[in-house]
Amino acid sequence: MDVVIGMDIGGTNSDLAIVNKTGEIIARTHLDTASYSEFEVYASEVADCAKKLAKEYKVELKAFGIGAPNGNYYSGMIELAPNLPWKGQIDVVGIMEEKIGVPTFITNDANAAAIGEMIFGIAGNLKNYVMITLGTGVGSGVVVNGELVYGHDGFAGEVGHIISTENGRVCGCGRKGCLETYASVTGLRKTVFELHTNGKRSGLLSEVPFEKLTGKDIEQAALKGDAVALEAFELAGKELGKVLATVAAVNSPEAFVLFGGLANAGKLIFDPIRKHMEEQLLPIYRNKIQLLPSGMKGNEVAILGAAALAWNEFVRI
Amino acid sequence: MDVVIGMDIGGTNSDLAIVNKTGEIIARTHLDTASYSEFEVYASEVADCAKKLAKEYKVELKAFGIGAPNGNYYSGMIELAPNLPWKGQIDVVGIMEEKIGVPTFITNDANAAAIGEMIFGIAGNLKNYVMITLGTGVGSGVVVNGELVYGHDGFAGEVGHIISTENGRVCGCGRKGCLETYASVTGLRKTVFELHTNGKRSGLLSEVPFEKLTGKDIEQAALKGDAVALEAFELAGKELGKVLATVAAVNSPEAFVLFGGLANAGKLIFDPIRKHMEEQLLPIYRNKIQLLPSGMKGNEVAILGAAALAWNEFVRI
Repeated sequence: MDVVIGMDIGGTNSDLAIVNKTGEIIARTHLDTASYSEFEVYASEVADCAKKLAKEYKVELKAFGIGAPNGNYYSGMIELAPNLPWKGQIDVVGIMEEKIGVPTFITNDANAAAIGEMIFGIAGNLKNYVMITLGTGVGSGVVVNGELVYGHDGFAGEVGHIISTENGRVCGCGRKGCLETYASVTGLRKTVFELHTNGKRSGLLSEVPFEKLTGKDIEQAALKGDAVALEAFELAGKELGKVLATVAAVNSPEAFVLFGGLANAGKLIFDPIRKHMEEQLLPIYRNKIQLLPSGMKGNEVAILGAAALAWNEFVRI
Repeated sequence: MDVVIGMDIGGTNSDLAIVNKTGEIIARTHLDTASYSEFEVYASEVADCAKKLAKEYKVELKAFGIGAPNGNYYSGMIELAPNLPWKGQIDVVGIMEEKIGVPTFITNDANAAAIGEMIFGIAGNLKNYVMITLGTGVGSGVVVNGELVYGHDGFAGEVGHIISTENGRVCGCGRKGCLETYASVTGLRKTVFELHTNGKRSGLLSEVPFEKLTGKDIEQAALKGDAVALEAFELAGKELGKVLATVAAVNSPEAFVLFGGLANAGKLIFDPIRKHMEEQLLPIYRNKIQLLPSGMKGNEVAILGAAALAWNEFVRI
């Protein structure tokens, strides 16, 4: 059976899976990314793992897809990723192809997820949509006419860094008011503490220190009717609604597909997003754009996305 | 010789030209749009004009491209255009094809201009760019991977209605703070009067009533160093700079191509746009994006754009 390898490179872990044409995960393993200070050594280990699995499951490796922070589709490089152990520019595709012997492709995790949604998820019939990842940060993958948009430099789809509130919260990118400072899990936690600072008390959340407060805590509190938690979801939805209305005015997509920690909160986040997006949309776009949860399982989005990238490119070869 | 017809339908005038493959205008005429209350009658007149010109210049009509406000590429209709004499939905492509007997295509004027720039202008080598029209309003045409983006409903590219200042100036679309209320010729005039209202006096502009003040007046005053006029250009550039930085985070284009009345002011508008865009861009996009004036002559952009649409589609048939 023909298969591809899909791999999600994260700062702590690298998840690797063997995936067939229908998106079934045949086998799965992981490596401890942080323990490999040399990329060459890491790449050899990845190749060994993949070949071993292929032999064990009697499948034939056809292509290798990688989702990684700052992974650039055009150059095949990971460029200056702050949370990975390898500094500078790493020729990921060049080195991996040499070690593993199959065509290798890379992009960032949100772009991979967008392709995954098209091939294995719910976006099979969608030609124009934007995938939004609401995790620690906010990522995005833009699809136009059924093709992922890489832009001229491979860095298209940074919707999390659209400024949603001028002179707003300080962002890791060095600017102020980026969507990601409000609509990520981190943003949600910031809102809770900002509300505390402004004198609003929450019986459920006020006792938890910032570093220990999780998105799940806030979700649980909101489900119990905690006013601070509900206001945090409302603000995240408002900022997202504004930015999605802006993105609509560029590419006019038929859907936004949401996934990641915050998206799992369901109605708590979908309802405020929908309300604010519709309010902010130019009238010609109103009541047309679907807001959908991802069709892929949470812990499989990243590797299925990377595998989808590999299948998608392999078909063109 | 094979030629196409390019037509720009405006509220007052319709410009019509016969254009060859290299963008040469062989013949040109115009109709008084406002005097035709029935679209059928207008369409017959257009067809007669085009056939007469084709006969006179001994050329063969191959296709017909139309740029019109609210012209929808997918439906072939003009939909609810406030400044045209025909109300409701008009089946422009259906009726025109019947009258003129060649394949007919329609889109809005800014989209047509974006295609024109690709085929007859300076964007021949650009695969990812956004055309921005700075006239009475602000229009845009988005190009990704060498193809115009129509979006799922044909209405992509409404960059003029991205909100650049929250709760800002009232816009004709019913919302507040749209880019077009600052960065169009109308926006520039509004800024001059707002500055007057706030106590700033201009020796050159304070005596002119709102309805008589033109973009050219403000440009002339700015060239003479008038502080109010210069501040108006600065604000237009700031609002545009913010929005272009936002658009970059969606599609990562290699260039923004500007045309229309305000773009003709050259350095007066390009300098503030560039300064504010670079300041507002996410660091990975800085010093990469070109800001270019259109390569087409001002009074030919619209008809060359419509002709380019026709050539572009004719090649695919």
